[in-house]
Amino acid sequence: MIKCLKGNVIFAEEKNKLKVMPHSYLVINNERSAGVYESLPEEYKNAPVEDLGDKLIIPGFMDVHLHAPQWLNKGVGYSEELLPWLQKYTFPLESKFADIKFAEKYYKLFVDELKSSGTTRACIFASRHYEATKLLIELMKESGIGGYVGKVNMDRNSSEELQETYEDSVKETTMLAKEYSGDDNALVKFILTPRFVPSTTSELMTKLGEIAEKYNLHVQSHLDENVDEVAWVKELHSDIPTFTEVYEHFGLLPDNRTVMAHCIHNNDREIEVLKKHNTFIAHCPLSNFNLASGIAPIKRYMEEGLDVGLGSDISGGHTLYMPVSCVAAVSASKIYHVSHKEYSPLTFAEAFYLLTKGGGKFFGKVGSFEEGYECDALVIDDSNITSIDGMTLEERLEKFIYTGNRGNIVRIYCRGKQIK
Amino acid sequence: MIKCLKGNVIFAEEKNKLKVMPHSYLVINNERSAGVYESLPEEYKNAPVEDLGDKLIIPGFMDVHLHAPQWLNKGVGYSEELLPWLQKYTFPLESKFADIKFAEKYYKLFVDELKSSGTTRACIFASRHYEATKLLIELMKESGIGGYVGKVNMDRNSSEELQETYEDSVKETTMLAKEYSGDDNALVKFILTPRFVPSTTSELMTKLGEIAEKYNLHVQSHLDENVDEVAWVKELHSDIPTFTEVYEHFGLLPDNRTVMAHCIHNNDREIEVLKKHNTFIAHCPLSNFNLASGIAPIKRYMEEGLDVGLGSDISGGHTLYMPVSCVAAVSASKIYHVSHKEYSPLTFAEAFYLLTKGGGKFFGKVGSFEEGYECDALVIDDSNITSIDGMTLEERLEKFIYTGNRGNIVRIYCRGKQIK
Repeated sequence: MIKCLKGNVIFAEEKNKLKVMPHSYLVINNERSAGVYESLPEEYKNAPVEDLGDKLIIPGFMDVHLHAPQWLNKGVGYSEELLPWLQKYTFPLESKFADIKFAEKYYKLFVDELKSSGTTRACIFASRHYEATKLLIELMKESGIGGYVGKVNMDRNSSEELQETYEDSVKETTMLAKEYSGDDNALVKFILTPRFVPSTTSELMTKLGEIAEKYNLHVQSHLDENVDEVAWVKELHSDIPTFTEVYEHFGLLPDNRTVMAHCIHNNDREIEVLKKHNTFIAHCPLSNFNLASGIAPIKRYMEEGLDVGLGSDISGGHTLYMPVSCVAAVSASKIYHVSHKEYSPLTFAEAFYLLTKGGGKFFGKVGSFEEGYECDALVIDDSNITSIDGMTLEERLEKFIYTGNRGNIVRIYCRGKQIK
Repeated sequence: MIKCLKGNVIFAEEKNKLKVMPHSYLVINNERSAGVYESLPEEYKNAPVEDLGDKLIIPGFMDVHLHAPQWLNKGVGYSEELLPWLQKYTFPLESKFADIKFAEKYYKLFVDELKSSGTTRACIFASRHYEATKLLIELMKESGIGGYVGKVNMDRNSSEELQETYEDSVKETTMLAKEYSGDDNALVKFILTPRFVPSTTSELMTKLGEIAEKYNLHVQSHLDENVDEVAWVKELHSDIPTFTEVYEHFGLLPDNRTVMAHCIHNNDREIEVLKKHNTFIAHCPLSNFNLASGIAPIKRYMEEGLDVGLGSDISGGHTLYMPVSCVAAVSASKIYHVSHKEYSPLTFAEAFYLLTKGGGKFFGKVGSFEEGYECDALVIDDSNITSIDGMTLEERLEKFIYTGNRGNIVRIYCRGKQIK
């Protein structure tokens, strides 16, 4: 079925330039965009058109790294850096997801908030619990938004309640892989999720690498987030030159289907390894601020051709509402620029690219309105944002991203289907 | 008249420790706090008590640096650094405030938003226009919130429409000084406001120094925000060793009554000058991110005994809602810590101190609930912020600051008077 939305369509076709089409037609052919047109082509003349007036039509937001069970902790506990923070705040909360009633209550609220935030695809860490992870996958399916959900693997260096055995980890991961892989077109998929190197024994990483290959799974984890973490990995795997190569060694950087969060302290050698495997980078600036992790050289990654998207990293980050991460990505790049003049700051257009088409690439042809892209769209009513006369559409978009909120998102489409 | 509010009272009595008093009584004696008590002292037994249940009662937010006419530009134009940004975005908008109708329309909206943001005192730059500045002072008086409002002085290096002559600048400033000084207890006062050194001729700065002294005025300006700006000041005043000493030379750092925004690139010598005059520092982290200005060494200033508060710096910053600046202050200090290990990041308690009692000091005994402080208070209903069981009051406050919004502020008091 074909339908058309008429409005001010803005999307990031290129990395550094917005495509701005005032009072134009976004043509949706079932799940996909059939393009955006200033006037409706002859072939679509009979399709129904909804005129959204002066509203903005933009792609859905992409969140390529977040932890669903930590949602309850957002906004508290930022007095610690990564490793003590995990022990003090994160592990105690995640262990509660052994209780399926607890998981049900909070995962419902989490999915509702994720959806209302305008995020149409997300790459999600659940906890290490099989039942709760399965529940989260089902709740995501019901919500109408898409992405990946992973059961965390962690058989060492964790808290007593949260740590799992090698055997349970392999067994439960295999069950989920069997249940939720095979359908390439599924909107919500299972993703292999070793927490990070210090949490997974070599034996488990070896096995997970095999599972990734056998079921053709995507993989997500953390990389080079914090200097103490990097030193710890070096201590645990002194025979492997770098943190990145530990994942590579165990088959956990499958080409084109791995996303690594943070990538702040990677050295040149590691960047080459990431390039070799076309590893996707999840930039999580709010988390990197909150946990004093540092600033990732995102402009460098973009210039070197690596794929990058933005992650809220709840609860290292403190909000699921991705425009705040988009603003923080610009801020982080500006502070980075002050001490690294060779890398210019992210422009607003570049940050919006990361928020939409950049992150969307991890989910397929997602995050743009070019013909053939899966049609994830938000309709933005910015009429309550006071503006000066004569503002351009680019300026209206920037102003919405910097100063708007969830209330400005009046409609949400995912894969062509209106879900709000 | 004495009245009591009962609730969970939290304030920053010390610089690095919150005072947390569950289900306690804030006693308000006319304009001032008569203290906070776990149980009501005998002398107040007959005073009316309003029980606010489980709500939080915290001091009003203090915004020690912002530009009212730039409010319309918040959230746009962050592709430029300070000096080109002034020319391209700021000066054209400010020049519109020559039109009193325009000023009336937008200053009303601005004051409404400032008040609804929970800011109970603000230190405000108007534009250089006499009429519009007078109007803004009157609108602030009507609103019930307090602070300082200044007419900007700028007789060089500006746009053609916005620049004023030395004569007009002196004449209009003197008129406002006469109209709005003398009453030390006024809730809204006039403040002398040379834009910054490059905008004011030596002749004008000399005269403004005399006016400051004659009328015992407070002074606000900008200092060491951007490296190009610092170089420009050096070029304009090559006979004076530093930017800070230019202000000092012209009598524009009157002891105990000057606030300087930013203070990012000050050298050791300048810091000593600021200490000598007990100059107040307005830390504006959002603006410093947005305009790629750098990060101010706030922990150093605090350790050296300088007074610091937070400024939204609209529209260098993009929101009047001060909790976002509070979060950004913590973030900025964490990134600063990564490269300056000798200065620890701001704790949440320290950032909340800056937001309330720290900034409040510029307005008198303001920003705390200690006995004798002018009673500016916010009542926070955080019941819609999902929390885990057993959260402490400190954690609830942190969560509100990180994830709440204006909607959580259900009552506002300024100088003991309920204004919302």
